[in-house]
Amino acid sequence: MRIEVICTGDEVLSGKIVNTNFAHISQKLEDVGLSVAWETTVGDDRESLLRAFQLAGERADAVIVNGGLGPTVDDLSQEVAAQAAGVELALNEEWLTKMEDFFRRRSRTMPPNNRKQAMLPTTAEVIDNPIGTACGFAIDIGRARFFFTPGVPRELKRMLEEQIIPRLLAKSGLQTAIQLKRFHSYGLGESHVDALLAGVEALVPDGSVKLGFRAHYPQLETKLTARGRDMDDVRKKLAPVEQEIRKRLGNFILAEDDQTLEGVVLAELTRRQATLAIVEMFTSGQVAARFAHLPGAEKVFRRGVLSRDLGEVCAAVGLDAPAGEITRETAEAVARAARQHTGATHALAVLIDLDEGADRIEFGGTICLAIATVGDTASRRSRIVGGREWVRLGAVEMALDCLRRFLQSLPVWERTDFEKVDGGAR
Amino acid sequence: MRIEVICTGDEVLSGKIVNTNFAHISQKLEDVGLSVAWETTVGDDRESLLRAFQLAGERADAVIVNGGLGPTVDDLSQEVAAQAAGVELALNEEWLTKMEDFFRRRSRTMPPNNRKQAMLPTTAEVIDNPIGTACGFAIDIGRARFFFTPGVPRELKRMLEEQIIPRLLAKSGLQTAIQLKRFHSYGLGESHVDALLAGVEALVPDGSVKLGFRAHYPQLETKLTARGRDMDDVRKKLAPVEQEIRKRLGNFILAEDDQTLEGVVLAELTRRQATLAIVEMFTSGQVAARFAHLPGAEKVFRRGVLSRDLGEVCAAVGLDAPAGEITRETAEAVARAARQHTGATHALAVLIDLDEGADRIEFGGTICLAIATVGDTASRRSRIVGGREWVRLGAVEMALDCLRRFLQSLPVWERTDFEKVDGGAR
Repeated sequence: MRIEVICTGDEVLSGKIVNTNFAHISQKLEDVGLSVAWETTVGDDRESLLRAFQLAGERADAVIVNGGLGPTVDDLSQEVAAQAAGVELALNEEWLTKMEDFFRRRSRTMPPNNRKQAMLPTTAEVIDNPIGTACGFAIDIGRARFFFTPGVPRELKRMLEEQIIPRLLAKSGLQTAIQLKRFHSYGLGESHVDALLAGVEALVPDGSVKLGFRAHYPQLETKLTARGRDMDDVRKKLAPVEQEIRKRLGNFILAEDDQTLEGVVLAELTRRQATLAIVEMFTSGQVAARFAHLPGAEKVFRRGVLSRDLGEVCAAVGLDAPAGEITRETAEAVARAARQHTGATHALAVLIDLDEGADRIEFGGTICLAIATVGDTASRRSRIVGGREWVRLGAVEMALDCLRRFLQSLPVWERTDFEKVDGGAR
Repeated sequence: MRIEVICTGDEVLSGKIVNTNFAHISQKLEDVGLSVAWETTVGDDRESLLRAFQLAGERADAVIVNGGLGPTVDDLSQEVAAQAAGVELALNEEWLTKMEDFFRRRSRTMPPNNRKQAMLPTTAEVIDNPIGTACGFAIDIGRARFFFTPGVPRELKRMLEEQIIPRLLAKSGLQTAIQLKRFHSYGLGESHVDALLAGVEALVPDGSVKLGFRAHYPQLETKLTARGRDMDDVRKKLAPVEQEIRKRLGNFILAEDDQTLEGVVLAELTRRQATLAIVEMFTSGQVAARFAHLPGAEKVFRRGVLSRDLGEVCAAVGLDAPAGEITRETAEAVARAARQHTGATHALAVLIDLDEGADRIEFGGTICLAIATVGDTASRRSRIVGGREWVRLGAVEMALDCLRRFLQSLPVWERTDFEKVDGGAR
């Protein structure tokens, strides 16, 4: 089944808005084993919209159109859809009532121009939008089934998941029992993980489990899509592959599905009623910024201390500044002092010695991390190269991941693909 | 002149990568008075590429193609361009030599598959890429001039600016003396600024100065594009409009052109050899994270103190915790104590009282900000509503902007469009 996507709107075409809606649509389709063959972006312009609808209607079996369902004069999707399908627009009384209810529940009167949102092509099938006034709809144009969706991201996402993907799966004849399983890791590059996982798809010989990746440095998402007769069948197929992935990626898996690294760290600390102090140098608040504002962190996050200067860091936690370069031992002393100074049960110290000179691709930093509790200390040393921003991102992720490993009783040190080999690493 | 853009690549089509290259191309063209009429995304697939080239070649005067110039087998742009233009591919000796030099300068031998990057359609005009091995080129397909660009963002950006935009301007017959002037503001919404600036374009009656906006909450970018005979003419046209914008937006302008808010704050502090301490509650490192990692901040940023708890904040700066809710007076006392405690010349305190309960659109926070120096204290109170993330983003920007205003001897308090009216605001 050939699927195309048409994105509409002057703000997207002019680049004022980066088109994240398209990436979302395409990824969600990939997740259920469908794929987009062609994407077109046009502005709020009758002639372009009509031509785009006609061309896609000649080529595709299904077309998702995003945007242009709003109440203003430049929202043209319904009107041009009717024209392309060769039918009239008519007021849909049911949707009008729904919109009036929508405004009434919010103690507001519906503005007259919203009435336009209930004008639909006469042959359209209404697609519900439970969280907005833009009415989704489906209609045939040329040889394709067109699905019209709102531009507001949260409305699009819900409509896509609940209404459109089931219709596309039914139309494609694919088995509709589908599950997406995701693993998040830090420290291994995409090609490395791809090699480590060679052959896992073949554990289910009928080809119904597919492996995919999405890299967003420093994290990598490993995705499994499984299809089957029903959800029991899907779960049965996924189980051995999931188990194998957990075995092969081991300690590098930091979270699964909707979990996040910072969420896992917060949950581990909350579970043991622990409190945390964080000390940062070059990252200067960027480790704390991932963690300390989360709901529930107000009970766990005790204190953060930031400085670009080691002497200042030590002064802030009541420690005499050690002479010489930053070492693992310094980081351990700082973490222990921070814990005592703040009364937290856990302390994380992230000390960074940046290279000298201007930013460049060979620019690097030496990172000494330590975690201290009342009876235990762990630390690691690492060198990351690739420019200031790369060092910063890598250090933040490594610090949070080391804390996750420590809390899960895993080795804090394991070689990653993102660091330079360095004699003193362990 | 009708311009189209074709983006190529499975990673973009599948949504694995969000297509920021397209937004960049389109915005850069808008900045010089050109605009994109139609965008197409296709995968690394011969048939789709050929069809996309043919269709754009029938409709457009100029087409920018992005991606597919790499050394691997799925990079098909040169091959399909030759096919669409009805010419052969041939080795471009000049580019081959350039690539070999490129590798030699980096003390590496060119891998054999890079040779493919020097295979160009025989009628192609080479477009230089001074920072990569992908060779840009221009060729006629149908009635359009096609410009092929690399997918690597920094290579695309440079080639677009230095090579392709001048060619497009020449082709369009637009006057080629063009300047873009940008103003960054915080606190006023796009429609408010649009109303405040009504009529400024008309200060240059020939229509050669255009006004535009780009909103990225909490900041707004106001853009002026001016065209003229030569740069002197352009500057003469821009001057009165610039002056009028500065007058009307006044203290809300926080930076111009490539300056950033945090950069302006850093420059002001550096200029007076000042040092800064930052104290944060709910934002927990997010104010410091914008500022303290910048080159040069190591001399200015003295210390950051973070906590979600007011008692803990006070303890960290050697202050007895005041009873009752957070007030401007509390923030002032914390800022003064932080300055004394750390020995910094300036201190910024960002204290936030968050609403209770789950995140929702009505969720808000009361923000008390204070800035202290040895002889002076300034503060403001504000209430921001719109969910946890909105409060967080708003508070970070407001804190940095208040510090900017203080350093520039401007009033720290001025009513913004993003806060709830609140009796105790001043």
